[in-house]
Amino acid sequence: MFDPSGIAVVGASASEGKIGYEAMANAAAFDGPVYPVNPSGSGTLFGEPFVESVSDIGGDVDLALCCVPGPALPDVLEECGEAGIGAAVVYASGFAEAGDEGERLQARVVDVADEHDVSLLGPNTSGFVVPERDLRCSFASGVEKIPAGNTAVVAQSGGVAHVLAFQSRRQGRGVSAMVGLGNRANVGFTEAIDYFDGDERTDAIVLHVEGTDDGRGLLEACRESDTPVVAYKVGQSDVGEFAESHTGALTGDHELYTAGFAQYGVPTVDATDDLLDAAAALGNSPEPAGPNVGVVTAQAGPGIIVTDRIQRAGGRLPELGAETRARIDDVLPGVTYTGNPVDTGRPMPEFGELVTAVAEDDAVDIVLVYELFEEALGFPVASLSGLAERVGKPVLFATEGVEEEMAEEKAALAEAGVPTFETPERAADAAGVLARYAELSARVAAEEVSRDA
Amino acid sequence: MFDPSGIAVVGASASEGKIGYEAMANAAAFDGPVYPVNPSGSGTLFGEPFVESVSDIGGDVDLALCCVPGPALPDVLEECGEAGIGAAVVYASGFAEAGDEGERLQARVVDVADEHDVSLLGPNTSGFVVPERDLRCSFASGVEKIPAGNTAVVAQSGGVAHVLAFQSRRQGRGVSAMVGLGNRANVGFTEAIDYFDGDERTDAIVLHVEGTDDGRGLLEACRESDTPVVAYKVGQSDVGEFAESHTGALTGDHELYTAGFAQYGVPTVDATDDLLDAAAALGNSPEPAGPNVGVVTAQAGPGIIVTDRIQRAGGRLPELGAETRARIDDVLPGVTYTGNPVDTGRPMPEFGELVTAVAEDDAVDIVLVYELFEEALGFPVASLSGLAERVGKPVLFATEGVEEEMAEEKAALAEAGVPTFETPERAADAAGVLARYAELSARVAAEEVSRDA
Repeated sequence: MFDPSGIAVVGASASEGKIGYEAMANAAAFDGPVYPVNPSGSGTLFGEPFVESVSDIGGDVDLALCCVPGPALPDVLEECGEAGIGAAVVYASGFAEAGDEGERLQARVVDVADEHDVSLLGPNTSGFVVPERDLRCSFASGVEKIPAGNTAVVAQSGGVAHVLAFQSRRQGRGVSAMVGLGNRANVGFTEAIDYFDGDERTDAIVLHVEGTDDGRGLLEACRESDTPVVAYKVGQSDVGEFAESHTGALTGDHELYTAGFAQYGVPTVDATDDLLDAAAALGNSPEPAGPNVGVVTAQAGPGIIVTDRIQRAGGRLPELGAETRARIDDVLPGVTYTGNPVDTGRPMPEFGELVTAVAEDDAVDIVLVYELFEEALGFPVASLSGLAERVGKPVLFATEGVEEEMAEEKAALAEAGVPTFETPERAADAAGVLARYAELSARVAAEEVSRDA
Repeated sequence: MFDPSGIAVVGASASEGKIGYEAMANAAAFDGPVYPVNPSGSGTLFGEPFVESVSDIGGDVDLALCCVPGPALPDVLEECGEAGIGAAVVYASGFAEAGDEGERLQARVVDVADEHDVSLLGPNTSGFVVPERDLRCSFASGVEKIPAGNTAVVAQSGGVAHVLAFQSRRQGRGVSAMVGLGNRANVGFTEAIDYFDGDERTDAIVLHVEGTDDGRGLLEACRESDTPVVAYKVGQSDVGEFAESHTGALTGDHELYTAGFAQYGVPTVDATDDLLDAAAALGNSPEPAGPNVGVVTAQAGPGIIVTDRIQRAGGRLPELGAETRARIDDVLPGVTYTGNPVDTGRPMPEFGELVTAVAEDDAVDIVLVYELFEEALGFPVASLSGLAERVGKPVLFATEGVEEEMAEEKAALAEAGVPTFETPERAADAAGVLARYAELSARVAAEEVSRDA
C-alpha cells in the first residue's frame, strides 16, 4: 500500500472536478507507472494511455485507487485481486457509515478483499500521501505541497488527515506519510501502526481517533511499537449521532480511551496542533528519562506561562543542583532568577551557556528554552547544536518575533535538530507530553518485567 | 500616554544594544517631534539633535521614555513633571519585584509621579506600541513590523505583550495597541481598560493577568467597558515565588479570578493564541444574542472536532428549524448530514447557500463554518460577505490548506469582515467564547436591572 511499484487509477476520468480526475492528477506525479483505468476512456490522461481494465495491465502495478461508486466495488476488487494487485484505496462513501444497506455492502467488499488478499484503505477516505516518494493517493487539492518529514499521521478521518498535513506544513514541519483510514474495512489503526513502526522515514506516529470496536488491538499495536505514538481522541461531549454518520463508529467513552492509552504507554493530547507538537518533540529528541523539566527563559512573562503549563501537563520543575547554580552565577552574576526557571530578563550573549549548564544538570530530564527573538543577538544556535544528543535529553525551543527576520536562525535550529514551537503554551504542552511519555514508558516497562518474572 | 504630540527619550544613547539606543531607534519613526535627551550626548541620534534635559524642550513633548537606571528616576520624573510632560514609560527593573529596597524606590517614584500628575507605565516593562501611529515606545526589535488591527493587547508582562503582538502578526491580524504594564506603578489594568474602551481604533480588549492587588478595580473597569474584554489569567499551578520575582504580584487564586471575571461579564481563556482568537471573534462580529451555534462543515472529521469542542467550551448546538432543513434539502438533496452540524461531505458550489440558510435560522445565534480549501472552488466569499451584519450574528470561518494558494481568498474574507481561524479547535474555542460572552453579558445586564429596580 504505502510503497508500491505502480498504480492503477480505476475509474480515472477526463472530467475536471470528478474524483477520478483529481485522483489521477495527484497520482500522476509518482515515479513508477501510473495507469488510468476506464473502459469508456480514450486517448491519454496526464500523458498516460487509458486501459480498459486492471486485467490488461502487466505485473508492475500493486496498488489500485478505486474512484468508482460503492456498488461497483465488489467487481472492481475482484478484478484487482485476480490481477495480483494487493492493495486498494476506496474513496466512495455510502458504506458502514450510511445505515444497514451500506453495512451489507461493506461486508461484501471486505469479503472479496479478504478472499483475494487485498489490503483495503477505506472506504469513505480521502486516501494517503507519502511526500518523499511523491506518492499522492488523495483526491484533495494541494497535497503536492505537503513537505516530507518524520511524523506519520494516521487519522480516522480523511479530512482530519489533510488538516494535520497542511497544519504541519504551516508549522514548517512535514510528514513521512499521512493516512486517512475512513471506515477501516481491513486496514485499521493496528495495521497502520505496525507498518509505520517499521518505516525508516518515521520517528513518531500520531493517531486521530474517533472510535473503534477493536480498542484492544489498537492499544496492543501501540505498546508493541518501538516508535513513539501519541493519540488524540476526539469526542468528550456527546457527538454520537453525527460521529456515527461519519465513519460508522461510535466515539465511545473518552475517559476509557484516555486511561487505556495511558496504560499502554501512549500520551494523549487534546487538539490537532498539540498532536503535531508532541510528535515534533518525541520524533526529534533522545528518549526522556523522566518528567523533570529545566526551563531557561529570556523573559519572565512567557517563563511564568511555561512553568505553570508544564506543571499542569504532568511535568515537574526540579531544583537545580548547587553546581549548576554556581555555574550560572559564574557566567552571569546577579541573573534575574536563578531557580528553575532560570530567567535572564532579556536575551544576551551568555544565554546559550546558561542553557548548557541547565541541560547538564543531573536533576533535569528535559530542557525547554524560551526566548523572544532579538535580531542583534539571534538564537544560541552554536550552544544548542548537538546539545540534546550530547546530554541525551530532549531540548525544546520556543520563540516569537517577526517571522522573516527569524527565518534564517530558525532554519539553523532545524538544521541542528532542535524542535521549535510557536507559542509558550504549546512548547510547554510538548514538554508535558515528553514528561508523561517518560513516566508511562517506565510504567509499561516495569509491568513487563513483573509479568515476565 | 497613548496619543502624544511629541516624545522625549531620556537617557538616549548612541551605543547600539543599550536600551537608550534601541528605544530611540524605535521611537524615531513617530511623525511628531522626538528628542534624544542626554547631558553627555553630542551631535544627533537618528537625525535628531541631543538635548541636555527635558527642561530644554518646548511645550510640544508630552511623553517621556525613561531609559535611565532606577535610582535616577525620581529626579528624571520630577524634571518631566516640571516640564509639563504628563506621561512616562519606565523600562528599568529593580523595583517592587526585587525586594524591600526596590519597593521603597518604587514608592518614591510613584509619589513623585503623583505629585506632578505624571501617568507612569512600568517600571519593569518593555513599553507599548500603537502601530497605526508608528508610535513605538518599546526597546524590543521588530516592533515596526507589528501590523495595525482592532485588538488592544494589555499584558501585565512586557514580554507577553510582545509575544501576543508578534503572534497576532503571524496570524495575519494586528493590534490597535500593545501595552506591557509591568509593575503598574500608577497606570494599571483599570486605567488601560478605560482608555482603550474609549479608543476608536479598538474593538476588543485582551488582558494578560498574572495577579493584582486591585482585583475589584480591574473587574469594575471590565464591567464598565462597552468594548468586549477577554482575560487570560496565568498561574493555575504553583508559580508563586517566580511570579513574585517578576512583576511584584502574587499570581493569586486562579479560580477566584475566573469566577470574578465571569461575574463581571468577562469570558476567560487559557492560552495566548486563544486570547487573540477570542478578540478576533468578538471584535469583528455583531454581539451574539445567545450561545446557540450553527455549524456548517464540508468535511465530517473536522466537523466532529468542532462540534465536540463547542459543547465543551460552553456553546450549544440547537436543532435547526423545519424551514431551514427544507431549504437545505432543496439546495442539496441527500446532503451527508442535515442535523447541526450540516455536513456536505466535501466542498461544493452550493456551500455558501447552505451557510446562509443556517445563519438565517432563528434558533442560531452564532455561525461557524469549516471547509478545507479546494482550489477549484475557493471559499464562498460572495455568500459570506456582509452575512454577519445582515443577520446580526457572528459568522466565523476556519479552514486549512496550502497557505499561498488560499492567500487571495483569505484576504477576500478578511476584506469582507469575516474572522478566520487556524485550526478546528481554535475556531470552536472562539465560538465558545462568543457563547459565554452572550450568556455572561445577559446575566450582568439582568443583575443591573434587578439592582436598579
